[in-house]
Amino acid sequence: MTLLEDLQQLLGGDRVSENETILEQHSKDESYHTPHIPDIVVYPENTREVSEIMKLAKQYNTVVVPFGFGSSLEGNVIPYDGGIVIDFSLMNKVLEVRENDFLVKVQPGVTRSQLDKELKKYGLFFTVDPGADATLGGMAATNASGTTAVRYGIMRDQVRDLEVVLADGSVIHTGNMAAKSSSGYHLNGLFVGSEGTLGCFTELTLKVIGIPEHIMAGRAEFANVDDAVNAVIAILQAGIPIARVELVDEQSIKQINLFSDTNYNEVPTLFLEFHGNEAGLQQDVEFMKEIVDDLDCQKVEFETDTAARNRLWESRHNAAYAYIHGHPGKKQMVTDVCVPISELAGAIKDAREAVEESGLEGGIVGHVGDGNYHILLMIDVNNPQDIERANKVNERIVGYALERGGTCTGEHGVGIGKQKYQEKEHGDALGVMQRIKEALDPDGILNPGKVIKGDYAKS
Amino acid sequence: MTLLEDLQQLLGGDRVSENETILEQHSKDESYHTPHIPDIVVYPENTREVSEIMKLAKQYNTVVVPFGFGSSLEGNVIPYDGGIVIDFSLMNKVLEVRENDFLVKVQPGVTRSQLDKELKKYGLFFTVDPGADATLGGMAATNASGTTAVRYGIMRDQVRDLEVVLADGSVIHTGNMAAKSSSGYHLNGLFVGSEGTLGCFTELTLKVIGIPEHIMAGRAEFANVDDAVNAVIAILQAGIPIARVELVDEQSIKQINLFSDTNYNEVPTLFLEFHGNEAGLQQDVEFMKEIVDDLDCQKVEFETDTAARNRLWESRHNAAYAYIHGHPGKKQMVTDVCVPISELAGAIKDAREAVEESGLEGGIVGHVGDGNYHILLMIDVNNPQDIERANKVNERIVGYALERGGTCTGEHGVGIGKQKYQEKEHGDALGVMQRIKEALDPDGILNPGKVIKGDYAKS
Repeated sequence: MTLLEDLQQLLGGDRVSENETILEQHSKDESYHTPHIPDIVVYPENTREVSEIMKLAKQYNTVVVPFGFGSSLEGNVIPYDGGIVIDFSLMNKVLEVRENDFLVKVQPGVTRSQLDKELKKYGLFFTVDPGADATLGGMAATNASGTTAVRYGIMRDQVRDLEVVLADGSVIHTGNMAAKSSSGYHLNGLFVGSEGTLGCFTELTLKVIGIPEHIMAGRAEFANVDDAVNAVIAILQAGIPIARVELVDEQSIKQINLFSDTNYNEVPTLFLEFHGNEAGLQQDVEFMKEIVDDLDCQKVEFETDTAARNRLWESRHNAAYAYIHGHPGKKQMVTDVCVPISELAGAIKDAREAVEESGLEGGIVGHVGDGNYHILLMIDVNNPQDIERANKVNERIVGYALERGGTCTGEHGVGIGKQKYQEKEHGDALGVMQRIKEALDPDGILNPGKVIKGDYAKS
Repeated sequence: MTLLEDLQQLLGGDRVSENETILEQHSKDESYHTPHIPDIVVYPENTREVSEIMKLAKQYNTVVVPFGFGSSLEGNVIPYDGGIVIDFSLMNKVLEVRENDFLVKVQPGVTRSQLDKELKKYGLFFTVDPGADATLGGMAATNASGTTAVRYGIMRDQVRDLEVVLADGSVIHTGNMAAKSSSGYHLNGLFVGSEGTLGCFTELTLKVIGIPEHIMAGRAEFANVDDAVNAVIAILQAGIPIARVELVDEQSIKQINLFSDTNYNEVPTLFLEFHGNEAGLQQDVEFMKEIVDDLDCQKVEFETDTAARNRLWESRHNAAYAYIHGHPGKKQMVTDVCVPISELAGAIKDAREAVEESGLEGGIVGHVGDGNYHILLMIDVNNPQDIERANKVNERIVGYALERGGTCTGEHGVGIGKQKYQEKEHGDALGVMQRIKEALDPDGILNPGKVIKGDYAKS
């Protein structure tokens, strides 16, 4: 028997593919990183099948890469060593809504929009909002976050339990249904953000919350980015529990207007949202207005209906796609550092200089309430100079962040793109990570070369 | 040279002790678990010294137990294998308050009350409130929480970075100063709750928040525990962002009245606190009152001044000590399960039955907003029947929780007391924990026999 035959026997011919188009679809993510085709793509339907696939991978000494929607941005799912890609798109069921426990149990292939649609029936919502319509499994794998993290936390904060298939095919649960626990080592936290290098998630239990009683969203316009950033810092200092606060610079507003058919003033802008009860929210918003008025805010405008509010956030979420749409033939490199809030104004200033000096087209958007921001740079991947310029910007931005206590990736993960910064960021802690990887994947068959460099496998 | 001489050369004679009283002080925690004296107690003043101590421990193949305030409740710091106890009481400095980043950097021996006093100068506070005046190092080691976790999360949620001395004496940092990160495996989360079995914490960077604009605290009295529990569930379902919601049963109110000189009605009571802006808080409180009125609440009383509010919480925090004070010569066994909220009413009902059937004196208090509650049982440790009865109650309570998706310990940690439940709770995930322990402490010298059973060490 060959691996292919064994997989076909396990899954049937329909759910094992060597079709060129299928392989090509699983050779890339949404980044500029060079694609690489896998040998085989499989579509399991349940945990048992994933476990059997892992056992076959071990038997044939073949590598395995778990694949959700392919919206990663650092080459996290590109199968550089070929092997088997496990596509989780058939494991896409919302298994249980535990309304009274504010929990939902999902399969890893459930997408964010699919979950939200289901939860709406119960008056609930899932807080993590990375923009892309990623799968929950992928979001947990990269520890995704997004616009609402400033209020509700990141993906890791929402994971109550994971069912994980380990490298040897055994199946574990990393947590439980209780709101807190001090029992044993915190495996939830370890597996979230492990990017498929420690195991494959086959079931996720996630925290959800009630849809807020009141929501207000708006935009605040500033003459320059510095003023906008200072306003964010002042809002946080005042202790206003803001639900979203996004910086969109002048260049990015221009792209948004072109793509989303909006006509926002083309100036540095904060997109804001407040959640709460009616009275508390009104007081928060008034307080916020006073603060930004003192900081030379030129205009604050709140949306009065749900449709306008949705359009506002849709336009923000489409900022990256707007750039891509406006630059046919080019790819996007996205930086992703996160700095302590006290370093944010300096970091954004340095980032703007870096973009200008590079000569590349691009802008800055970001989840500035967390100190996390992205430079969206448009590059011609066939032009080595463009790639060099973009790399130079990325290196400068990352260096700036790491020297000031920040991180090279706030929410996109390490993949292969952020690997070269791991030693500088983690120092000797990288050795601890390597020992954990060795302990849980001694043959190095789980998404090799991601997060931890490839030379860890025991001889 | 002997180990003692080496330690004396490193630290000077004053900071190495074999004094019987000192050894006895470090032979126990606040639990009923049998004490055991260590061979030597040392008092390092900085990270370098802790690192050198670890290297000596490795060299002499001696075990090491880190020790904070000794307020653990599951034997977590009892040195059953003798060896070196590292007492962190001289590493007790608040190193830096990063006001604009809402961060504080402390040494592990800083106590909770010491930190709060320092933070007050900046209008800030540290949210985790376990009752005991524990050290921050100890609180991180057991992943402590307490009354405010329902709103602000547990210890693990507050840790942004740890400086850790590993088993081989090397020093790592587990995180950074940024609000979020997707870089590498989440070592913050892994080390928090590891109870000194993976390394010694020598510095902690913790999240703090601004003191809320308005605070209201009060008590809601009920005819029976069921009504009180149902009120908690209804408040959570309504999405009211309650800051504290504590159940104190009739028996425990009696003990509190005796010990704290209060004269609360001796009925099942919820102790409540709300944080927010003035308008929002008022709306929350009114809404809460409507909810509990509908659920047969007999009386709601809010404290109008800070002194009365402080007395309310002091009396709650002293509930465990009140029992001890009221039962001279007896020790306390505290259960610590946490269940999904939907299982809370049944769990508390079963807990009350268990206490009544045991014939032991005791009551129920708990952080019921998280589904976490404690039975405080008074036992004569010299009476084997008492211990058997208490163990039986604990086993029943834990079994009830585990069968319903809960955990055997919500906030006290595993120590030795919860070890027998680890396999039932974690299944094959326990093997993953064991492999991590082996990878990071191959000689098994870090707090052996805690969290993970003692037979892990490589031969």
